[in-house]
Amino acid sequence: MHVVRVDLGPRSYAIRIGRGLLNTVGSACAALQAPPRCALITDTNVASLYGTRAQRSLVAAGFEPCCVVIPAGEKAKRLQRVSACYEALAAHRIERRSLIVAIGGGVVGDLAGFVAATYLRGLPWVQIPTTLLAQVDSSVGGKVGVNLPDGKNLVGAFHQPKLVLCDLDTLETLSPREFRAGLAEIIKYGVIADARLFRRLEHHMDRIVARDPDLLGPIIARSCQIKARVVGADETEEGLRAVLNFGHTIGHGLEAISRYGRYLHGEAIAVGQVAAAHLSHQCAGLPNRQVDQIQRLLRRAGLPVTVRLNRPQRERLFTAMRLDKKVRGGDIRFVLARRLGSARYGETVPPAAIEQVLNSLHPRPRHGRQ
Amino acid sequence: MHVVRVDLGPRSYAIRIGRGLLNTVGSACAALQAPPRCALITDTNVASLYGTRAQRSLVAAGFEPCCVVIPAGEKAKRLQRVSACYEALAAHRIERRSLIVAIGGGVVGDLAGFVAATYLRGLPWVQIPTTLLAQVDSSVGGKVGVNLPDGKNLVGAFHQPKLVLCDLDTLETLSPREFRAGLAEIIKYGVIADARLFRRLEHHMDRIVARDPDLLGPIIARSCQIKARVVGADETEEGLRAVLNFGHTIGHGLEAISRYGRYLHGEAIAVGQVAAAHLSHQCAGLPNRQVDQIQRLLRRAGLPVTVRLNRPQRERLFTAMRLDKKVRGGDIRFVLARRLGSARYGETVPPAAIEQVLNSLHPRPRHGRQ
Repeated sequence: MHVVRVDLGPRSYAIRIGRGLLNTVGSACAALQAPPRCALITDTNVASLYGTRAQRSLVAAGFEPCCVVIPAGEKAKRLQRVSACYEALAAHRIERRSLIVAIGGGVVGDLAGFVAATYLRGLPWVQIPTTLLAQVDSSVGGKVGVNLPDGKNLVGAFHQPKLVLCDLDTLETLSPREFRAGLAEIIKYGVIADARLFRRLEHHMDRIVARDPDLLGPIIARSCQIKARVVGADETEEGLRAVLNFGHTIGHGLEAISRYGRYLHGEAIAVGQVAAAHLSHQCAGLPNRQVDQIQRLLRRAGLPVTVRLNRPQRERLFTAMRLDKKVRGGDIRFVLARRLGSARYGETVPPAAIEQVLNSLHPRPRHGRQ
Repeated sequence: MHVVRVDLGPRSYAIRIGRGLLNTVGSACAALQAPPRCALITDTNVASLYGTRAQRSLVAAGFEPCCVVIPAGEKAKRLQRVSACYEALAAHRIERRSLIVAIGGGVVGDLAGFVAATYLRGLPWVQIPTTLLAQVDSSVGGKVGVNLPDGKNLVGAFHQPKLVLCDLDTLETLSPREFRAGLAEIIKYGVIADARLFRRLEHHMDRIVARDPDLLGPIIARSCQIKARVVGADETEEGLRAVLNFGHTIGHGLEAISRYGRYLHGEAIAVGQVAAAHLSHQCAGLPNRQVDQIQRLLRRAGLPVTVRLNRPQRERLFTAMRLDKKVRGGDIRFVLARRLGSARYGETVPPAAIEQVLNSLHPRPRHGRQ
């Protein structure tokens, strides 16, 4: 088992990464000294796969969990669903020290975390991310929230969990597409912070795609460590933390204009990273060769690296990007990489450069090597 | 002008108390260096009285405020209303550093504060409480939130404002009933923390009820100071802060069983304080004479000190009290006063004692002096 510590003063917590951790939920929660009544929040997919096992572990440890099951998928991440969770918690007489246990992917974690952040002005919560994306991304940093019709994650809070359990066994039931989507974030950590991790991914991508747990464990741990270091230095995203958004400005925009339907988050930010790599070449001196390396690694992970946008779609993309939380004074800001392993929360990029990059994302061969 | 500083480290802020402060909103907000676009949240009552003046002051200082007007009254303090506010903010393209300016009583402050706490994971906000209750209570401590059908303030956050302006002029348009409701909290500060304030209120209650601003200014400032001291020592209500809830356990219960319709908050906690005073006598040694003093002062302020409850109502009251956020392990806990000016977040009180006290609240002469 790997343990990554997220250092945030009184809000510090541990991420445990290993196999069979789902069976330890009960004892892990008992160690947090919460009262017996607690709530388990999960979705329809995860409930049938892992819900009973988690519930049994909690009951065996003396807990009385109520189980709140939300529909699977990004569409559940909305206020009405939050409201239904509140009602379930009130009905189960959840108290201020009661635990919320969230089992599922990013949607479950974001929604359950937001419920935990706001019910009774904040309850302790334990996060059990069951997708690769959630394990390497939302497990660190306490960003929780829901979408609005106007944009993704427009409503939310910072609310750190008390403990995170990443059970590698849960990755086995993940669809290939979901699994690949998680790899997009892992590749991002290499690009923004760790050239060695990037090279390791290049070296082992075939075994990683085959989900070799001996490789996945340390790579997930390293990803969490990188994010934990960044978040530890900037818990509420004043500046530094923004580097984690490499590929996300255009990525979020793509998700928004497709109404969160066409792309998985990881797929959208795979395309976003290719765009950000091109912008980094133009505006921050990222060598062309490394732009290619990034694109090739994403492609080997089975992720999309091109997108076809007509003019109206492109305009909607710009509008969506301007609604992004990171916008300041109306300007769109980007995270740009100077070289593999080093990125900086960017200055603003001229709209013409963005236009040009969107053109270059069009799916046609641009030069011979691709 | 009085200034009370609320010391909360990086979240510290000032409360300004004086006349004519509404006209200074624009310059005060400009000093916070927020971007031009901002949102002004108020209710239908306050909008017609003070909305234009505040808006003009903001525009004169270079701001571009959008104005969100919610219906007046406690019923607006619900999630659907929060959701409507989010949509207005998105439409006005509010950014992460944009200011939310809340002008109104407790409902507006709680709701707008919760919107500010959660939109884009937290925006800075300025609070302009226009009722006596809001000036001495919700202006300090950053408790924000909304009600659920199951109970009051079950959803919320801690989100400190950047600045609070208490304009004494706005108290002039307050209905006598609303004004008296505010006095209930001021009397509470005397009971729990400052015997001298309590004596001062006894001495001057007639001029206070006549809204003499020369008296009100320092009394509001002293109330804020007391609350600021308590909150400064316990921002997120781990223990000490609970003393502020003297009279609130039964008070909240009364509000809940009358569906937040019959009582103003201050009226409910006036009755709740009489109940808590009796319990304090039985369980914490508060002298009988001081129980009488508390009851008499509340009565002189024009507040209710009795309540008639039949058996089903009493049972619903117990159920409501058990849903209160302060419940731990199913027990109902009380704040008890040992003497005027000194209170402690209580041990649990035997249900029989609560029953007995509810009997004694019945409106009939209990002994000759009353």
